[in-house]
Amino acid sequence: MNEHNALVFLLSIAVLLGVARLLGEMARALGLPLVVGEILAGVLLGTTGLRRIAPAAHAFLFPAGPPAEMLSGYTTIAVVLLLVVAGLEVDLAIVKKRGRNALSVAILGMVLPLVGGIGLGYLAPDALLVHPEQRALFAVFVGVALSISALPVIAKTLLDLGLFKTDIGLLVMTAAMINDLVGWLAFSVLLGPMRGGAVDLGHLAMTVGVAVVFGAFCLFVGRRLVDRLLRQIEMQADLAPGRILSLLIVVAILGASITQAIGIHAVLGGFVVGVTVGGSPKLRERTRQTIQQFVTNVFAPVFFASVALRVDFLASFDVGLCAIVLAVASVTKVIGCGMGARLSGMAWRESLVIGFGLNARGAMEIILALLARDAGVIDDRVFVALVTMAIGTSLIAGPMMKWLLFAPRDGVAVSGRSASEEDAATLVRSGAFVPSLVAATSARAIEELGLALRSAIGDLVEPALIAVLEREMMAPTGLGDEVAIPHAAVDGLTKPVVALGLSHDGIDFDAPDGRAARIVFLLLLPPKAYEREVRVLAGLARSVFDEPARRELLAVKSAEEAVRCLDEHSRRIAGAARASGPRMASLTDM
Amino acid sequence: MNEHNALVFLLSIAVLLGVARLLGEMARALGLPLVVGEILAGVLLGTTGLRRIAPAAHAFLFPAGPPAEMLSGYTTIAVVLLLVVAGLEVDLAIVKKRGRNALSVAILGMVLPLVGGIGLGYLAPDALLVHPEQRALFAVFVGVALSISALPVIAKTLLDLGLFKTDIGLLVMTAAMINDLVGWLAFSVLLGPMRGGAVDLGHLAMTVGVAVVFGAFCLFVGRRLVDRLLRQIEMQADLAPGRILSLLIVVAILGASITQAIGIHAVLGGFVVGVTVGGSPKLRERTRQTIQQFVTNVFAPVFFASVALRVDFLASFDVGLCAIVLAVASVTKVIGCGMGARLSGMAWRESLVIGFGLNARGAMEIILALLARDAGVIDDRVFVALVTMAIGTSLIAGPMMKWLLFAPRDGVAVSGRSASEEDAATLVRSGAFVPSLVAATSARAIEELGLALRSAIGDLVEPALIAVLEREMMAPTGLGDEVAIPHAAVDGLTKPVVALGLSHDGIDFDAPDGRAARIVFLLLLPPKAYEREVRVLAGLARSVFDEPARRELLAVKSAEEAVRCLDEHSRRIAGAARASGPRMASLTDM
Repeated sequence: MNEHNALVFLLSIAVLLGVARLLGEMARALGLPLVVGEILAGVLLGTTGLRRIAPAAHAFLFPAGPPAEMLSGYTTIAVVLLLVVAGLEVDLAIVKKRGRNALSVAILGMVLPLVGGIGLGYLAPDALLVHPEQRALFAVFVGVALSISALPVIAKTLLDLGLFKTDIGLLVMTAAMINDLVGWLAFSVLLGPMRGGAVDLGHLAMTVGVAVVFGAFCLFVGRRLVDRLLRQIEMQADLAPGRILSLLIVVAILGASITQAIGIHAVLGGFVVGVTVGGSPKLRERTRQTIQQFVTNVFAPVFFASVALRVDFLASFDVGLCAIVLAVASVTKVIGCGMGARLSGMAWRESLVIGFGLNARGAMEIILALLARDAGVIDDRVFVALVTMAIGTSLIAGPMMKWLLFAPRDGVAVSGRSASEEDAATLVRSGAFVPSLVAATSARAIEELGLALRSAIGDLVEPALIAVLEREMMAPTGLGDEVAIPHAAVDGLTKPVVALGLSHDGIDFDAPDGRAARIVFLLLLPPKAYEREVRVLAGLARSVFDEPARRELLAVKSAEEAVRCLDEHSRRIAGAARASGPRMASLTDM
Repeated sequence: MNEHNALVFLLSIAVLLGVARLLGEMARALGLPLVVGEILAGVLLGTTGLRRIAPAAHAFLFPAGPPAEMLSGYTTIAVVLLLVVAGLEVDLAIVKKRGRNALSVAILGMVLPLVGGIGLGYLAPDALLVHPEQRALFAVFVGVALSISALPVIAKTLLDLGLFKTDIGLLVMTAAMINDLVGWLAFSVLLGPMRGGAVDLGHLAMTVGVAVVFGAFCLFVGRRLVDRLLRQIEMQADLAPGRILSLLIVVAILGASITQAIGIHAVLGGFVVGVTVGGSPKLRERTRQTIQQFVTNVFAPVFFASVALRVDFLASFDVGLCAIVLAVASVTKVIGCGMGARLSGMAWRESLVIGFGLNARGAMEIILALLARDAGVIDDRVFVALVTMAIGTSLIAGPMMKWLLFAPRDGVAVSGRSASEEDAATLVRSGAFVPSLVAATSARAIEELGLALRSAIGDLVEPALIAVLEREMMAPTGLGDEVAIPHAAVDGLTKPVVALGLSHDGIDFDAPDGRAARIVFLLLLPPKAYEREVRVLAGLARSVFDEPARRELLAVKSAEEAVRCLDEHSRRIAGAARASGPRMASLTDM
């Protein structure tokens, strides 16, 4: 190996990774997605920045030839792994169970942007198109580009708002998953003819068919193999994340090669493998996160920085184009998803929350834009406009959702009702308290707490237990920091009911931080009370927000002490919590 | 990016990683080091195997040109990271505190193999040398190659034997660390003139000087910066491993570039950065292991497989040469280290244990041989002989140490003395039992247990506490599985004394699995009773070896119950434990 080449390659990786991580962390500190900082690193180090300021340094760090090949090898692995991680986020079990509810949101949320994008593509001036004679393909691509969503950004926004494990959160996630599945399938299939330049509908149909067969094979046959393998590997918990990571890399690359060989873009293979593995009930949350952390810290920053490296963002920045793309993408998405949510019976305000949530495009849009640019489908101006749109939609999602959900209304600040009948202390006082749970599993703990509510809700205990257990199986409710809030809507209930239990040995609720829950709130809600659910869940979480509060609560012996403890802490924390911002930012960070 | 090239690169990574991991796991299952399987993967897939059997497949998977460049980029990062991980294993605090004891072992253990290797180099026939006119350099290289040790293999062997946290284990580790520091420094400095072909003593001396200054700068100035940065990063425990990993990559590559620029091989930079970061008290054991797991699972297998890829092991395998190298390497190392240990006052049998422990060469020898081959210092036959020696010495280390330590002697099987005065139940009965520790920190817990021994050892409590606390600060004694065994030798003690304490909240003893200790044995030993220490520690660990035993012990309320519980489990487990093999194989796996 030529030593100078190796040195230049190493240095370029060090500089890209270092600057991208640094700017990424600064973005995170400001509450922005990591990818914003990472793209900015590429802008500063690449054609836009460094080549203008210090052309010699730029030429030394990023020459053509072998070092560039080495770097492209690294980013090739990165893009496959990014799609794997995106696939890991998709939980098919949830799609299957909740898909019907989310379907109208997902469909309208895709169709409107698709139509809007196709319209944009047809109206675009010839000068914007790389191949004006292929306007139809270009238009379809813009439509697909506008219709995708960014699961990780959405998940992170939901987490920050404390909505991740609520019903409204699940609905948004499910719609985004359906959206992702269809979007990546459509894009991968499209890329073939786009590159070839030929529009052959028969061939296209066959490719779709092959892709569907490949996906089905992975998800049904591959899934069983994966389940068996993972069960074996997860038995040694310490070694599992590493082993699964290497297994994932191998299988994902093989999947990517297969899709590429059958004429579909390699990214689909990575994505489908991610979905297959992520859907396995044997994959622990902790393992998934370790893998994601590795990709986020080692591969993603170099990839996103290198995306922006060779594009001149100053020369290709077309304000009008960026504004139009951002506007069409946002308006069609928010209205489409919002209409879907309204049709499934939500209030307008909640429907708009869902619309803005799904409007975030994030890193996935950037990957899609890069692949299209590499394939010669779009030029740098459209690329920059799509990147701008991806970042812009991700930035407005959180603040808009927060404002719609928590803004003062009817003269009363919603988050200020600490003395209302919905705060943790009041709910526990009128509910039940179990000072020492006997249960060792989450199901038993739910049962124990449910039975303690007999005097409060009578015969509703049995249907409530069934609902909560079903909900828990679908998506466990461990919040981290030793707190879990199993919950469900129960037909016939008119107001929220809570049972609080303490477990000194801890009970596994599959929390993101891997810690067993020692404080368990069982929360029963009236049906379809989405807004109330959000408030009550946030209130319960807030009452045990800080470590001293949890320690103190764990030491109480009687219901009276527990109520007093919750009450004090809710009051004390109320002010601080509103200003605290992201709490579990580790979960989904791209 | 050319798509065919990208595809071939991805496929070659998938095949190398897949086969290397698979054979690595098979090696592990057989109790062999992972690297044996990984090298074998390269042998099977490369010039030795696949090119003979299916030349077309070999040419497709491993062509020259861009895909080879991409692969070499990947392995370049891999080798830097491998040296970083090797550096992370070196704990300078231990070297500083225990260095004096280990010095005679380290020095004699390096000098004898160095002399043996130089002798071999001078006696070698001209035909073996790439540049017969540079025999002196070649001879010095062989000397250095024979004198290094493999910290990870040694650590793993000590772990498997249950010796890792004993005094004999610390001594071996410390000697190996000194050995590593000197060995890599010598090798990096040597590579310069070896490549250049010129032997300029003045220049060589200057390079050594520069290297020492660089190392000192990193360890004294860099260390402070690292401490401050790590303290910041480790505050968010969930995000820490990923952040530190990306920081390490950036800093290690910069370090490697600096050493390369000043005429020393890049590997030294990676190694020194690893030592600097690993030496920081702010780096948690858990973080170190997560990083190591990534390198072990994602980078190391591809690197070691690719090492063997382009060498024809069949054509270059010279039985005589391999046997001579293995014999000289082993005899000089075992005798050198053994003499050193004997000089520091150990019995012959224990001295030989140390000799065989340090004889393991493992992955580090292979990296060194590869770099020398790439630099044109050795040919394929010498390369294959060094790889064979590395694997051979690693394979015999464990069995020899086990045999020397645990083999039946004087007609009594050492491991069978379960009813002797040294088993856990007897020790706790004559010692002390604290059913519920008040302490929240390891230091407080040690104090609490120490004071409970007042009636057993009287005025020795204070010196004992000081010794144990010092020992604990040097290397924490959390074993994992919620068990910790703080211990030390105490002057004036004539037999082992134990206090057992249970903590229901758990106390952090920095265990490899990150779990807090709930079962804490404070163990005080007579001075220099190495063999006894090994037996007693193994006995205590065995008494709480399985999950049910630990559960049961945690539920006892009185000393009588605790003694009964320990007694039953020691008996039940005695047979099983001897056959159980590696328990914490995750710690050091290369």
